[in-house]
Amino acid sequence: MSDSNIKVTLPDGNVKEFPQGASAMDVAMSISEGLARNVLAAEVNGEVWDADRALPAETALKLLTWNDQDGKSTFWHSSAHLMAEALEALYPGIKLGIGPAIEHGYYYDIDFGDQEFDSADLEQIENKMLELAREKNTYNRSEVSKSDAIAYFEEKGDEYKLELIDGLEDGSITFYQQGAFTDLCRGPHIPHTGMIKAVKLLNVAGAYWRGDEKRKQLTRIYGITFPKQKELKEYLHMLEEAKKRDHRKIGKELELFTFSEKVGMGLPLWLPKGAKLRERLESFMRKAQVKAGYEPVVTPHIGHKNLYVTSGHYEKYGEDSFQPINTPHEGEEFLLKPMNCPHHCEIYKSKPRSYKDLPVRLAEFGTVYRYEQSGELHGLTRVRGFTQDDAHIFCSQDQVKEEFKKVIDLVLYVFESLGFADYTAQISLRDPENKQKYIGSDEAWNKAESAIIEAAAEKNLNTVTELGEAAFYGPKLDFMVKDALGRKWQLGTIQVDYNLPERFELEYTGSDNQKHRPVMLHRAPFGSLERFVAVLIEHCAGEFPLWLTPDQVAILPISEKYADYAQEVYSVLENNDITGFVDHRDEKIGRKIRDAEVKKIPIMLIVGEKEAEARAVAVRKHGEGDVGTFSIDEFITYFNNEKAKSLGSSAE
Amino acid sequence: MSDSNIKVTLPDGNVKEFPQGASAMDVAMSISEGLARNVLAAEVNGEVWDADRALPAETALKLLTWNDQDGKSTFWHSSAHLMAEALEALYPGIKLGIGPAIEHGYYYDIDFGDQEFDSADLEQIENKMLELAREKNTYNRSEVSKSDAIAYFEEKGDEYKLELIDGLEDGSITFYQQGAFTDLCRGPHIPHTGMIKAVKLLNVAGAYWRGDEKRKQLTRIYGITFPKQKELKEYLHMLEEAKKRDHRKIGKELELFTFSEKVGMGLPLWLPKGAKLRERLESFMRKAQVKAGYEPVVTPHIGHKNLYVTSGHYEKYGEDSFQPINTPHEGEEFLLKPMNCPHHCEIYKSKPRSYKDLPVRLAEFGTVYRYEQSGELHGLTRVRGFTQDDAHIFCSQDQVKEEFKKVIDLVLYVFESLGFADYTAQISLRDPENKQKYIGSDEAWNKAESAIIEAAAEKNLNTVTELGEAAFYGPKLDFMVKDALGRKWQLGTIQVDYNLPERFELEYTGSDNQKHRPVMLHRAPFGSLERFVAVLIEHCAGEFPLWLTPDQVAILPISEKYADYAQEVYSVLENNDITGFVDHRDEKIGRKIRDAEVKKIPIMLIVGEKEAEARAVAVRKHGEGDVGTFSIDEFITYFNNEKAKSLGSSAE
Repeated sequence: MSDSNIKVTLPDGNVKEFPQGASAMDVAMSISEGLARNVLAAEVNGEVWDADRALPAETALKLLTWNDQDGKSTFWHSSAHLMAEALEALYPGIKLGIGPAIEHGYYYDIDFGDQEFDSADLEQIENKMLELAREKNTYNRSEVSKSDAIAYFEEKGDEYKLELIDGLEDGSITFYQQGAFTDLCRGPHIPHTGMIKAVKLLNVAGAYWRGDEKRKQLTRIYGITFPKQKELKEYLHMLEEAKKRDHRKIGKELELFTFSEKVGMGLPLWLPKGAKLRERLESFMRKAQVKAGYEPVVTPHIGHKNLYVTSGHYEKYGEDSFQPINTPHEGEEFLLKPMNCPHHCEIYKSKPRSYKDLPVRLAEFGTVYRYEQSGELHGLTRVRGFTQDDAHIFCSQDQVKEEFKKVIDLVLYVFESLGFADYTAQISLRDPENKQKYIGSDEAWNKAESAIIEAAAEKNLNTVTELGEAAFYGPKLDFMVKDALGRKWQLGTIQVDYNLPERFELEYTGSDNQKHRPVMLHRAPFGSLERFVAVLIEHCAGEFPLWLTPDQVAILPISEKYADYAQEVYSVLENNDITGFVDHRDEKIGRKIRDAEVKKIPIMLIVGEKEAEARAVAVRKHGEGDVGTFSIDEFITYFNNEKAKSLGSSAE
Repeated sequence: MSDSNIKVTLPDGNVKEFPQGASAMDVAMSISEGLARNVLAAEVNGEVWDADRALPAETALKLLTWNDQDGKSTFWHSSAHLMAEALEALYPGIKLGIGPAIEHGYYYDIDFGDQEFDSADLEQIENKMLELAREKNTYNRSEVSKSDAIAYFEEKGDEYKLELIDGLEDGSITFYQQGAFTDLCRGPHIPHTGMIKAVKLLNVAGAYWRGDEKRKQLTRIYGITFPKQKELKEYLHMLEEAKKRDHRKIGKELELFTFSEKVGMGLPLWLPKGAKLRERLESFMRKAQVKAGYEPVVTPHIGHKNLYVTSGHYEKYGEDSFQPINTPHEGEEFLLKPMNCPHHCEIYKSKPRSYKDLPVRLAEFGTVYRYEQSGELHGLTRVRGFTQDDAHIFCSQDQVKEEFKKVIDLVLYVFESLGFADYTAQISLRDPENKQKYIGSDEAWNKAESAIIEAAAEKNLNTVTELGEAAFYGPKLDFMVKDALGRKWQLGTIQVDYNLPERFELEYTGSDNQKHRPVMLHRAPFGSLERFVAVLIEHCAGEFPLWLTPDQVAILPISEKYADYAQEVYSVLENNDITGFVDHRDEKIGRKIRDAEVKKIPIMLIVGEKEAEARAVAVRKHGEGDVGTFSIDEFITYFNNEKAKSLGSSAE
């Protein structure tokens, strides 16, 4: 091995040598030209770099393409620069704020000064961007001194960039230039603009400079770009689908929930159909939990301030959340509960516990309240009050793994019953470099971490492990599900907690007759009922599984004449736990069927003369059509089979 | 009819004449000597009088005996005077505060000065009272001038009475004297001390003069008296029984609920068994309500302050309840909800309503929070947070009667299913003299009042009607149940409300295509779950009906050898919705049975060799003993029969 060569370790562990000055792109070329064409940037010893920068002598290298989130981010950040170049061409003299990549795409904040800007102009900007992209300009990095940087933007007359430079240290400043555009930027960027093949500017909004409402409002333009036209098309289709599936829209159409400004923003009111859905979810979970050895408890929605001082929640949520509730006499202060755990700790403490009693599993559908700024609120996914399907397991250190496995079983049972087939799990462990920032003994952490890892492996979970992502009080396992549109949602969490047992001085008497401290597990398969229902609505577009949907059948008499028979059928079904309604309106049957389809009622039962005489029902399935004519008893059997199928294969 | 005679109208409508100066006692004597012996006081034109006062020229007279609450009150007030007389004899120079009758008995507040007083002395006081009673001293009323009254108590040196006189107007002051004791007193009193045949001093407590903690603490002695020794015995027995049935005691023994000072006083924590009981009650009510056409909704536990300004609750509860919750930004204020109705009004308003949609019946197990001073808190009967089995019916004026009848059906179904066989209903109507203090038109009130009266009559309710007891917003019907100890509890209420529909501007479109205002009914058969459970515990001494009790069966293996079979039985029962547990402890079977009896488990299943071989269970009923040996299937049938029976005869 020559001393002047650099050493590159690839993700598969292979080590290759390259001459000094070699870049990630050179490495890519050495593998294949096809790969090189797709390289957007590179992860160099954990940092994302331009693909054409010279690599250090010892490099752990990962080539980043469109398949990597960091590759996409670089692509979109470069697209923000491209948009800025196009804007400067079309609107000379504009000033620029910041232009980062975001989860999907990017934005740039612009001060158009006296120039008029209209969102109708977006297409023109897109075209300009594509024109500039075709020039295949490279993104050129240069290090500049602070004084040169200031001089450049003073001449350009951009006070925003000057303000940003003001906050930077000399020696750390870089510019990136492509075509006619130069920006203050830390990078990295993609090799050249030509990789951007598809552009869509999505949205225009106002945004205060530096988020400060006392400062100037700039124009924020959101955009997204792709390396292929086809991908843009798919994305726009997905956006349209997502819009159709927006839980706020479907929630309104199906009359599941509503909001009232008078009651308060972010505080959902569950309408009858939504309440029925909620009740079914709760009852489903309650049953599964009782079977799994959980015991239900019920606790109040407030607690004495001291409770949260003990738990540490007051320190954590205190200032930024709902403020304490004063009382007219006696000077007591209460808090809306942000979490159920302190109450459950007090229940654990309400009597002496022995090792024979462990694990104690206390479950509650506990409604908690956390303040969110009104601008952050969003349908049911971001609310100010929500109900957790919460439970706390108090167990010995030796029981952690077994309990974890049981919770994983429960979570997977829930996912399958609700039709979420695609999920992964993230294991969040300590930062091994920084052990002092965690509570709990080294031994306990090691034990808990291996318990989680082993439990996940034994349950064949598809996992990623993140170091340093554990909470300060213990390691955890989070489930991510992919919905029907391929979007990922975090649902379901299991956390180990060494902190609260300490703070509440929880104890049990061991077989050695000594006092021991139990370990606490927090877990919530749904997470919050509100958020879960939102995700579920968007996943199934409001076509809930038969077992769950509020109205399972719509009984549609062909005319007034068969209203009595329809009502009779309804009563029989009601006594067999089949829910729904009779459409008694004076409407044609075609209209009744259409309306039931719109309401996404899974099964329609049409009754007319023939059916009334035969004491039968003509069955029609939502989105499928006629299934045949059944006697009422046959239908009940058919229904129960369909219902069992809708609970998923793992359901008992 | 002679002009000089007075005219007395008796409760049955009979009018009798008596010479001037005749008293209630003279009227009683004219009816029968036996009755006269039992007369304690008289209601004269609506006021309670001494039985020996000369009646006015025109008198509506009701003779009061021990059977009348006002008769009892007079008896106990006279007993307070008798106790004061006894105390003055035993502790000369004491000073006296006030000495009223209370719901059960009376008290007197005493300043013993330098004299020692010990509750061990109570028996001596009782004996002295009985000794003085035997003197059959009459209670003699005299009107005194303010200056004479002051002179009397100045000489006696009683600053408390002087302070009371200070607040009275000259010309309105009366003294009552019996034996050696004279008191400032408005009266009335019973004819003579000899009627007091049984005395028990129950309790001694400290009480600040005029309830002001800055003033002197006096000694309050509580007592009760009866006209017969037997009645005292029965009362003391009832007290003892009530102590045994105290829901706080049983709640602890059966591990139903607990309190934690850290969570906050008056905020119950429902333990697993209590939560199961609650869940059963809720599920029972939910089912009955769905059958009766109610729709469940779920609303948050807080609401914007403006919501309660609109509803009027802020004005009503504002200062004396939990104070508003501030938010860190945006300056919004929220309140813990004291009632669910405003939220339900907002749900009603969430879409346009037509007369075809009415009645709309929205039901919620809504947890509400109301501040009570810590001294007022008592177990589950007086708490700071409680869950109402609340519902609001929005209907047209014409539907009020029908809806009332349906709610009565529901309430009676609940009472029967829970074993409350003895109940009455109170109809509270407007004060016809004072119509202006009520909201809503005269016509609407007349209609609603007759609707309630007719509904109650058609349902054959045993009712009393009280004028002037209606709420300002509408008339109501309250149910009073008698528990196993004969104590009365108010449970279940139905109220008409004209106020909230007005304040929230609720509307529906009538068949005339015009906008109309609906009428609102509030109703809660349990009232609050907390209070209902407390009453139920005391009523059944913790021996809940089989359908409701948390653990229905205890499976008791004779030894470790049959643990597996016991577990197998448990699984079969669990799958058949029979709840309970296996007693796996290493204890003798006798001990296991005893413990299950103490825990009031209704059914014990004993399993040993014989049972395991025959796949059977030996059944034993709580408090009854062996019932026989059943196969598991036979037992399930037996159990389901017993369970159906426990739901009461009206249950479906």
